[in-house]
Order: sequence, then structure tokens, then C-alpha cells
Amino acid sequence: MLRIRKATLDDVRVLREMILEFADFEKLRAQVKTTEESIARDGFGEHALFRALIAEWDGKIAGYAIYFVHYSSFEGQGLFLEDVYVRDGFRGKGIGKAVMAEVAAIAIERGFGAMRWEVLDWNQPAIAFYEGMGATFLHDRKAVQIEGDALRGLAALITDR
Amino acid sequence: MLRIRKATLDDVRVLREMILEFADFEKLRAQVKTTEESIARDGFGEHALFRALIAEWDGKIAGYAIYFVHYSSFEGQGLFLEDVYVRDGFRGKGIGKAVMAEVAAIAIERGFGAMRWEVLDWNQPAIAFYEGMGATFLHDRKAVQIEGDALRGLAALITDR
Repeated sequence: MLRIRKATLDDVRVLREMILEFADFEKLRAQVKTTEESIARDGFGEHALFRALIAEWDGKIAGYAIYFVHYSSFEGQGLFLEDVYVRDGFRGKGIGKAVMAEVAAIAIERGFGAMRWEVLDWNQPAIAFYEGMGATFLHDRKAVQIEGDALRGLAALITDR
Repeated sequence: MLRIRKATLDDVRVLREMILEFADFEKLRAQVKTTEESIARDGFGEHALFRALIAEWDGKIAGYAIYFVHYSSFEGQGLFLEDVYVRDGFRGKGIGKAVMAEVAAIAIERGFGAMRWEVLDWNQPAIAFYEGMGATFLHDRKAVQIEGDALRGLAALITDR
């Protein structure tokens, strides 16, 4: 029996566990810098940056979603689905789709015309799953990042601060 | 002479004009749904979703940047650069790079390890410009979107609300 509910501060520990499981799945564990403390502050503090849902199957924690409101200068406010994850052992029960349906309903309730997320290009099962629900892939967009020395080097171009 | 400053409510009209110029440049004018009213609310209201910088060259409005704080479950808070645009007639003066340097400095001041943005894959001059500053391209990520009937169809899968 599936139940989807809002995450609370009491879920921070299991949320962090699942984020690490998800990072292992995506082969990105080395990237994880978030901690129970930072998750508590950023999701459940006074100036929360994200919201989270918890999926329970027969009372056991089966998965989660994290989303936030993002902004597009062309399209305005929109919902960005940062993560949707179903734990090993709970897959194939429709939990992922049910969680995404909840997030889609939240987007509609808030008057947003679209929901966006990202997928790793080698994750063919996920791509097929998203295609099946009518999602479109924005093939002409590349994600770009600057960090570390390059970020500091760019900032250092300012001479008048 | 270049001056970069924070945008205020008085800049909403010119900000909207430049967003439309940028959309024309990206061949995405049909996507623009934001208005002066929505920009004033989302950038300068009580719950601002973004911040904007204005670049002036010899006192004339030459370009802008829009950025906001986004969230990654792996990396935590980060700065997302939604737009950086320099008007026709003001290009080739280093304004774009100076604006990006300001945003990079803001990211560092806030303790963020990285700044992210997106580029259209046909915009080779922009790609070369970003490569020159040491940015990396996250080639394994695809942007996905669901909207309209597909979004409503997904939300309608919920039966118990």
C-alpha cells in the first residue's frame, strides 16, 4: 500500500541515506557534499530552498522526491524536480510515477505551465520512462559549470570591489 | 566606461525589453510569457525568486544578468545564472565577461563552490567564450520537460486527492 507525504525534519536522516543511495546509483557519490545539517537547514529551516516528499510502501520508506521553484526569464516561475528516487526492493510497483504525479499536481496547483528535470544520458530505462509520460528532451541545451580555480579566476577579473 | 549595478524596480521596463531582445537572438520569442508585472513581482517583490544586475556603458543600458540560488541534493546550494546578455552595439567590449565575473564573485561571497548555467548547442561563439574561462560542459546531462496535456495527464494519475 502506497502513501506519499511531505517530508519533515524527522525525515532528514533517511533522506540523506537515500540521497547517498541515489548518488551511488548515478556513480556520483564523490560529488556529495550535503550533510544532515545542511539538508535540515536548506529544506526545513526558515528560508527553505527545497521541498521533499517521502513515499512509504506498507509503512516502509521506499523513496523520495526533492523539488523547488526555479525561474526562467522567458517562462517565469516553474517547478524543478531535482530528484526522484525509488529504493532498490521497491521498484516496479509504480512508486516513481506516483511520486512524479504528486509533483506534477503541485506544479499545476501553483499555476506553473511546466515541470523540468535532468536525466543522465546513459540511463536508458529512465529516459524511456519519461518518454512514456509525454516528456520532451531539450536536446539543444547544454549544462555548463564553472568551479574551483576557474570560478575564482573569473571572480578575480573584478578590479573595483 | 563600464558600470555594473544591482537592478531595481525602476529597471523592470528595460529588463523586459532586453529579455525580449535576448529571446529574439535565441529564436525563442514565442516562448516568452513573462511581463513587466511578473518580472516586478518575481524579482523585486517580497518573495523575490531572482536577482538581476544591469551593465551600463557610458551611462547607457548595455546588458543584464539574472541569477538565483538553486539547490542540488548532492552539492547543496549553488548559483544558477539564468541569463547573461549584452545588447547589440555594446559587444566586443568585455561587458559579458565583466558581468559574469560579478556573478562569480557573488557566488564566492555566498560560499558556493560552483556556478551553473545553460547554453544553446548551436551558439558556438558563446561555447568558445565559456571554454576560454575554464567552464566545463556536463555532456552527460539531458534537460527534460513536461508541460500542457502531458503534465495534466501525469497529475491526473493521482486518485486520492
